[in-house]
Amino acid sequence: MNRDVIKERIKAIRRELNKKKINCLIVTKPANVTYTTGFLGDDSWALITKARVYLLTDSRYTEQALNECPHCRIIQRTDSLAEATAKLVKKLKSVQAVTVEKSTSLADFEALRKHAEARPKSIANVIETIRSSKAVSEITAIKAAARIAAQALKRTLRYIKPGTTESELAGMLDFQIRKLGATNSFPTIVAFGPNASRPHHQPGRKKLKQKDTVLIDFGAKYKGYCSDITRCFVVGRPTAFYQKVYDVVEQAQAAAIKMIKAGVKITNVDAAARDVIDKNDLPVYGHGTGHGLGLEIHESPFLKADSKGKLKAGQVITIEPGVYIPGKLGVRIEDDVLVTETSCRILTRNCPHSPLLHNAKG
Amino acid sequence: MNRDVIKERIKAIRRELNKKKINCLIVTKPANVTYTTGFLGDDSWALITKARVYLLTDSRYTEQALNECPHCRIIQRTDSLAEATAKLVKKLKSVQAVTVEKSTSLADFEALRKHAEARPKSIANVIETIRSSKAVSEITAIKAAARIAAQALKRTLRYIKPGTTESELAGMLDFQIRKLGATNSFPTIVAFGPNASRPHHQPGRKKLKQKDTVLIDFGAKYKGYCSDITRCFVVGRPTAFYQKVYDVVEQAQAAAIKMIKAGVKITNVDAAARDVIDKNDLPVYGHGTGHGLGLEIHESPFLKADSKGKLKAGQVITIEPGVYIPGKLGVRIEDDVLVTETSCRILTRNCPHSPLLHNAKG
Repeated sequence: MNRDVIKERIKAIRRELNKKKINCLIVTKPANVTYTTGFLGDDSWALITKARVYLLTDSRYTEQALNECPHCRIIQRTDSLAEATAKLVKKLKSVQAVTVEKSTSLADFEALRKHAEARPKSIANVIETIRSSKAVSEITAIKAAARIAAQALKRTLRYIKPGTTESELAGMLDFQIRKLGATNSFPTIVAFGPNASRPHHQPGRKKLKQKDTVLIDFGAKYKGYCSDITRCFVVGRPTAFYQKVYDVVEQAQAAAIKMIKAGVKITNVDAAARDVIDKNDLPVYGHGTGHGLGLEIHESPFLKADSKGKLKAGQVITIEPGVYIPGKLGVRIEDDVLVTETSCRILTRNCPHSPLLHNAKG
Repeated sequence: MNRDVIKERIKAIRRELNKKKINCLIVTKPANVTYTTGFLGDDSWALITKARVYLLTDSRYTEQALNECPHCRIIQRTDSLAEATAKLVKKLKSVQAVTVEKSTSLADFEALRKHAEARPKSIANVIETIRSSKAVSEITAIKAAARIAAQALKRTLRYIKPGTTESELAGMLDFQIRKLGATNSFPTIVAFGPNASRPHHQPGRKKLKQKDTVLIDFGAKYKGYCSDITRCFVVGRPTAFYQKVYDVVEQAQAAAIKMIKAGVKITNVDAAARDVIDKNDLPVYGHGTGHGLGLEIHESPFLKADSKGKLKAGQVITIEPGVYIPGKLGVRIEDDVLVTETSCRILTRNCPHSPLLHNAKG
């Protein structure tokens, strides 16, 4: 990660901490640790004071941390994270009180309290809010992750044929993602036929039939950043009902995407998609219409019926309405969208997007 | 998951809760939710009262929950987990006070406190301690996960050749695991040459050379249960130093395994491995000698220099000493071991285990 990028982030975080009169923040959420330090490993915390950023890690990661975080003081701990952090805080004369992220567990909070001299305070969403608007370098990384995902799906579609299991198809897609130098941003979902009515179906031994439907929800993670795409395909000819549902979901997605620009109420975008499905007498999905994505696969903002706030330029969000009818079918279409001042840009346009899978042969 | 198995677990948990005078436990850790309900999805909590077990999930998972948790009351929530749980608690006349797991985040704890009438209490490791000793059905699942991992590695080794990248090799292995009907228990580590000195190296674009070394740390997850294996291979002829290090790590592992039986102090097992490495004038690894595994890839007991307690029959643990010399090499050997009353059983014996990779050809 570019040193200047991290410097800018720390500046923005310190500005926020100053406003809130926070002297020292203990960063425990993995994505926030990555954001503030550039570190891509696990089991590590960061500590932000007015003067420095510290990364507390262990010997498994020291070499990696020295490479990835040239601007941080690396502390190689042998104690637990809470104990090592409390010890460091005690040594820092300039730190009067510490604040931890609210995503920290009760157990870690209590351990910190035990080892530190004073009771820590806690705060939510300081870094999450800053992270939600992406810098140019982050948008570039998400675009690359989206390009890899699209490329991987293209290569995988060639292998779809009756007899392939859900699990094999998921494995092929994951392999292509790896071959392109990325990893999965979450466990790939592949659902054949009625299995797609479970939005988070786990791929199993079910075999693709001569006439069948395929839902694939997947993403590539590249340089720490996630993409997230859902596509539905038909092997053979779609039933009239499947085609109708597909068209409605496509319209619902288009209606939401049309609404997107900086300053628009999030609930308006959410409602735009739901209304199309409702007006077509299909069951309205129970999940959100979308979510922010970046270092985390699900991050701020969350597009739900009860969301507060407005979209901001630089946010990258998914738009993913769906229709689910248990025992019958599931259709979801999901794209990644960059919010701009005047409208939006679809980052996943290159990903294969046709309900009819012409080349699937037995 | 077999209904009787879950019943037995709930009985054991209720016994523990009774002892601790806990009337109602809110289970928030995903592995503990799976353990108490059989549910394999995400974003769901369980609630255990004297009379019932509830699963609070959302519409994405309702269909799955109805299949997987026939003994639970399924609550389909639209509110946040904390709010939905607080509402449920208010409705239950028999519940006077609630207790949450200490792995819960501060944010969720505060939301629960806000929505519930009284301040919840918190407790650590009730279910983790029970989970640590495995039932026969769990050992069977871990054995199956280990068998799949071994089989996947065997198939992958055929494809290793100079020019293959770390990332491709990891992808091939993951694909084989998928083809065998399982998923990864954690992101596969593949490290060529000196990259192996970083115990948690992330596979990259580095290509395998004509004479090279390969470290692979991976696992299969099957029916919710994990295996975890590390193997080191040499392409071409190993250097005398690599061979020496390999032999020492193998001896260190054997020394630890020889100590294992129910009732032995965990620190004695840990020390047995470290002593062999130290006596051979090699740097002693900074990570633990091993960890329990089951529904989580890292769970109780943890085998470290400062661990408390003794091994118990039915625990499944990894034994994974290593030697790491930055810029030069890394060697780790890891097997999964079932603790018995009188000794132990290695569950990963079938996994290819030879430092020399005879069939690797350019």
